[in-house]
Amino acid sequence: MRREQTGGINAVEALIERSPERVLQLWVAGDNPRVKALVGRAKAAGIPVQAAKAGTLDKQTGGETHQGVVAEFRPVEPMSEAELDALVEARGGDLLLLALDQVQDPHNLGACLRSAAAAGVDAVLVPRDRSAPLSPAARRAAAGAAEVVPLVEVANLARALEHLKQAGVWAVGLAGEAGTSIHDIDLRGPRIVVMGSEEKGLRRLTAERCDELAKIPMPGSMESLNVSVATGIALFEAVRQRGAK
Amino acid sequence: MRREQTGGINAVEALIERSPERVLQLWVAGDNPRVKALVGRAKAAGIPVQAAKAGTLDKQTGGETHQGVVAEFRPVEPMSEAELDALVEARGGDLLLLALDQVQDPHNLGACLRSAAAAGVDAVLVPRDRSAPLSPAARRAAAGAAEVVPLVEVANLARALEHLKQAGVWAVGLAGEAGTSIHDIDLRGPRIVVMGSEEKGLRRLTAERCDELAKIPMPGSMESLNVSVATGIALFEAVRQRGAK
Repeated sequence: MRREQTGGINAVEALIERSPERVLQLWVAGDNPRVKALVGRAKAAGIPVQAAKAGTLDKQTGGETHQGVVAEFRPVEPMSEAELDALVEARGGDLLLLALDQVQDPHNLGACLRSAAAAGVDAVLVPRDRSAPLSPAARRAAAGAAEVVPLVEVANLARALEHLKQAGVWAVGLAGEAGTSIHDIDLRGPRIVVMGSEEKGLRRLTAERCDELAKIPMPGSMESLNVSVATGIALFEAVRQRGAK
Repeated sequence: MRREQTGGINAVEALIERSPERVLQLWVAGDNPRVKALVGRAKAAGIPVQAAKAGTLDKQTGGETHQGVVAEFRPVEPMSEAELDALVEARGGDLLLLALDQVQDPHNLGACLRSAAAAGVDAVLVPRDRSAPLSPAARRAAAGAAEVVPLVEVANLARALEHLKQAGVWAVGLAGEAGTSIHDIDLRGPRIVVMGSEEKGLRRLTAERCDELAKIPMPGSMESLNVSVATGIALFEAVRQRGAK
């Protein structure tokens, strides 16, 4: 059985709320009232709770902020590519996927997952190599979303996009140099939004597999955004076009 | 003379490009080709460059990633409230401001400044107390935007919003519990977008001073976004409505 740890009030709260059966153990330190409330809910769910020193929690989270609470849990297994095929078929025209082409920073990965969960994204594709791992830092930045949105680790992202295209899924890649604004692209229907890495953007082979490339119009004096911010803007433009209220 | 340091290729590059006269000194380590290119540009601009050990740079940036380059520079002085008044008048109907009501995390502050610079925001208001400082970590996350967008430190944000209202600036506060979608609010004309803190959102007094409260519609299974992502979505919705291409 794989076991992982995550810290931080939001992340642990989301875990206990959504998947109490996967939480194996809680460690708590200090007297934050929100942590105390979490302890009550954990105990009610039959989860063992142990007092610890803040320094011990620091070590468990590798120095990441934990706000006095760390949970050990069984992580959700990544979704297989076969399961993804079934999901694509089941969701039909409502499908919304996200691909992160070699995002490097675990905080950015986590923030992208959080935005994906809030936007109702069905699954997030990442290439197996050279992507940030779903580390404790990433899980914390995801604030619980890592337990909510299925992650699909693909061997070859360009090939996965090609395969999705056969199933009718249109790929929209974000690229600063694109000529078309994201607002002028139809994001309704089965779509996968494809984001590049922090330093290099989309790889050439990935960009070539996209059906359309889109830019976020930037009227200001700087022309780049944090990748998790750009991901949020693109996903919520899809949400807007799909008429969510 | 105030002196500050910032690390990271994007941040130092933006500094040298936009404000070479404010860069006092560069320290470099390692052999990243992008850092080498920066050294060439710094020397051409008459900026002293010194070789250093990576460990020394680690200390200078307080453990933040520096990618082998740290710059010492004279920071831009914050904009005064009187200067803000002049800016409001000069920009008229094109004015777009951002207020961050006690954002706590320096990375979030930095990412918000970066989005603000890309969206063409005229100035960012922060309350003087209980906000994340413009630390090296914040500057690095801002990727140079801290040297581009004027920051206005206000003694009392609610009073500042009231004062702006007298000058015709409409305040739109983001709040998850609001009944109206951000897409249904007119963000053209002189506007200030007001964002709350990571844990608590908008303070009551701040929310009461807003002319309208708006939510970002979230059809997914989670209902919160990272504050810098939410800021990006709100600002770029204003950009969209204003017809940027």
